[in-house]
Amino acid sequence: MTAYEIITRKRDGHNLTREEIHYYISEFLKGEIKDYQMTALLMAIYFQGLDEEETLYLTEAYLQSGEILDLSGIDGKKIDKHSTGGVGDKVSIILAPLVASLGVVVPMMSGRGLGHTGGTLDKLESIPGFTVTGEMNGYKKQLQKIGVAMFGQTNSIVPADRKIYALRDVTATVNSISLITASIMSKKIAEGIDGLVLDVKTGSGAFLPDHTKAEQLARSLIQVGKAFKKTVVAHLTSMDQPLGYKIGNWLEIEECIDCLQGNGPEDVMEIVLLLADEMLVMAKLARNMDDAREMCLQSLGEKKAYAKMLHLVKSQGGDPDMIEHPGKYRHAKIIKEVKAIDSGIIREFDTREIGMTSVLLGAGRMRTDDPVDHQAGIILYKKLGDRVTAGEPVLELHTNKTSVLNDAEKKILGAIQIGESPLSPPPLISKRLTS
Amino acid sequence: MTAYEIITRKRDGHNLTREEIHYYISEFLKGEIKDYQMTALLMAIYFQGLDEEETLYLTEAYLQSGEILDLSGIDGKKIDKHSTGGVGDKVSIILAPLVASLGVVVPMMSGRGLGHTGGTLDKLESIPGFTVTGEMNGYKKQLQKIGVAMFGQTNSIVPADRKIYALRDVTATVNSISLITASIMSKKIAEGIDGLVLDVKTGSGAFLPDHTKAEQLARSLIQVGKAFKKTVVAHLTSMDQPLGYKIGNWLEIEECIDCLQGNGPEDVMEIVLLLADEMLVMAKLARNMDDAREMCLQSLGEKKAYAKMLHLVKSQGGDPDMIEHPGKYRHAKIIKEVKAIDSGIIREFDTREIGMTSVLLGAGRMRTDDPVDHQAGIILYKKLGDRVTAGEPVLELHTNKTSVLNDAEKKILGAIQIGESPLSPPPLISKRLTS
Repeated sequence: MTAYEIITRKRDGHNLTREEIHYYISEFLKGEIKDYQMTALLMAIYFQGLDEEETLYLTEAYLQSGEILDLSGIDGKKIDKHSTGGVGDKVSIILAPLVASLGVVVPMMSGRGLGHTGGTLDKLESIPGFTVTGEMNGYKKQLQKIGVAMFGQTNSIVPADRKIYALRDVTATVNSISLITASIMSKKIAEGIDGLVLDVKTGSGAFLPDHTKAEQLARSLIQVGKAFKKTVVAHLTSMDQPLGYKIGNWLEIEECIDCLQGNGPEDVMEIVLLLADEMLVMAKLARNMDDAREMCLQSLGEKKAYAKMLHLVKSQGGDPDMIEHPGKYRHAKIIKEVKAIDSGIIREFDTREIGMTSVLLGAGRMRTDDPVDHQAGIILYKKLGDRVTAGEPVLELHTNKTSVLNDAEKKILGAIQIGESPLSPPPLISKRLTS
Repeated sequence: MTAYEIITRKRDGHNLTREEIHYYISEFLKGEIKDYQMTALLMAIYFQGLDEEETLYLTEAYLQSGEILDLSGIDGKKIDKHSTGGVGDKVSIILAPLVASLGVVVPMMSGRGLGHTGGTLDKLESIPGFTVTGEMNGYKKQLQKIGVAMFGQTNSIVPADRKIYALRDVTATVNSISLITASIMSKKIAEGIDGLVLDVKTGSGAFLPDHTKAEQLARSLIQVGKAFKKTVVAHLTSMDQPLGYKIGNWLEIEECIDCLQGNGPEDVMEIVLLLADEMLVMAKLARNMDDAREMCLQSLGEKKAYAKMLHLVKSQGGDPDMIEHPGKYRHAKIIKEVKAIDSGIIREFDTREIGMTSVLLGAGRMRTDDPVDHQAGIILYKKLGDRVTAGEPVLELHTNKTSVLNDAEKKILGAIQIGESPLSPPPLISKRLTS
């Protein structure tokens, strides 16, 4: 068994054995298999794929590379949520305190923004003082105490994924269903959870815009979860337009506060409530989705979810005053209103391009080590199907970099298609899948 | 233009521009594009291919990475020959002195054995004292003086190919028609030649066993040659069985001496004479193939080709006594006759496996930095279509390693298929191609 033989077998479309996959990952971590052999195999996997069993073996090998959290000392069901990523997707930051306020234990390990998508950690860090890079023991204690912790992947959690993801990121091998599955599921299983709710995005702002591929990914994630005896439910949801109106780190926190105060945009709340219902049923805290919904609305109405958010922010070193009085937060130096060129109905958003515009404004990053500007971003005034008139302001660009403003305006106007005929936007929630 | 974008475009099946290809190679040589990004692109090229223009751009980029020899000070046409490699393929070592004895100038840059195929440089080095790693200036002077030099790729010749080949070799990305084309043609063009004769192997011992693929490779090599204004002729020849009877470094030199003495195996001489004819016509030293054949047979009959070989050996530091009295050369310590298990007709050789057996015996290498044993190898007693009787010796294994003997015997017996029905071996020379 050599790296060469394993690459050749995958290149030629053969299935790799469990031994081969474990060997490849462990020799890679030892430095015996080199980065340049890993990326050759990753590209071969991009073209030839991994089947269900190979994907499971890869997840196992990832998982064995690091620590698996033991949360058995904490009472209650530990349930996490994962989204495959999108533009304006701030759901986790509302959902986690909401379900925690109702008794679900949420050990939520999130990622940073990359490419056109934002990241939960960057958004949380826009709250002054909020820390996501602390010690695991501290987060465990916090979970015990308040039932929710939101943090980044530590060095000890699935180091194989961290090393391999860094290579995928610079070699155009991210978008492989099997590689995505192993990456997501190994981290989620390492959290020590009992169950997982997945929000698999489709449409122009998703990593896998194609509905069929997104569904394949959902099934693949569910299969691996099942093999590890985790309850997994997935929803396919639309990324044909940004979620909510605000895009950018602090701007999205503002919208999260609105949501927790009962003033959130309809689409954001629809997803938050759907996933919350699932988590409550999975945790056996609600008998069914209807009961769960009632519980959620009550928690929101009584500001319990909001109180839990304040608690979470305080526990992780954030300034609660910024949550209670978000108006104190300084916005970006430059705020420019962009006006529609044509009149008509908004028929299409190129959501990826809108995400890339927010990167250009400073809100995101193209490389994992780029800094992000917490103030930068976009506020949309309109959504799919809305009527606009030429000259009418349709959005705001927020940035601290004058130089990018013209390009950003051009880019985002090119991402909005205006037409004559009316449009019913595609359904936000299209399919539920479970094992 | 970033490495990521270029990998993505090739991964998605787009054609790369000249600028993209030149950028990728030059940034790679500067260390700005990393090995792990190069191998990802190589694997993407393995799957998506490069078209004619892209292959030309890659050859250009390779060529520009190093020195191009200026042989204009040497009178006469400079013609080289290249074989895509096989088992027992010793043609260059007979061909070069033969055509040089008739006035062709042959600046022959060859390679080392790797995997199942042997290499001209290893064979030449089995002649005590023979040096292939000298200074280019010395070889130029030798070319001026005796019209032939046989040497290895120097550091200054196409360094991009050397660096990239080392990566292809360990990432299963060698067997790509466009990558093979750029690698071969950049080196040949860098030699400063006027014309090139190609021996493109097909069949079980070839790098591209499939006839159609071998023909594609031949056409690709010819196209690039044409773009650089070089006359190129290619022949597709059979590697369905080893060429000649002897496989291994010194053993093949023995067979070369036989050939130059007029006692060579028919198949070896058939290829040597065919390619020699082409080179003489290309160099305008013969009016046509028939005249060329007559000149070759005369040179061989008058031992002029043999004398040129002696001259070559002396010029490059080799011991001419070993050529004049090859019987003085000590063979391997262990020589084992292998007997046929069944009676019948030899219907098939797995020539690649025979090559791999010679590697096992010590004659070849699996990694570029492995040493080779000049004495090790195989002597076949039989060829395709020959009748054998159970218990009759069919070949000899030569090695200095007792431990591999049983495995080697098993391996080589498994590579010989004996059946009942008679067989006409496939034609040795199947197709001539030119621009």
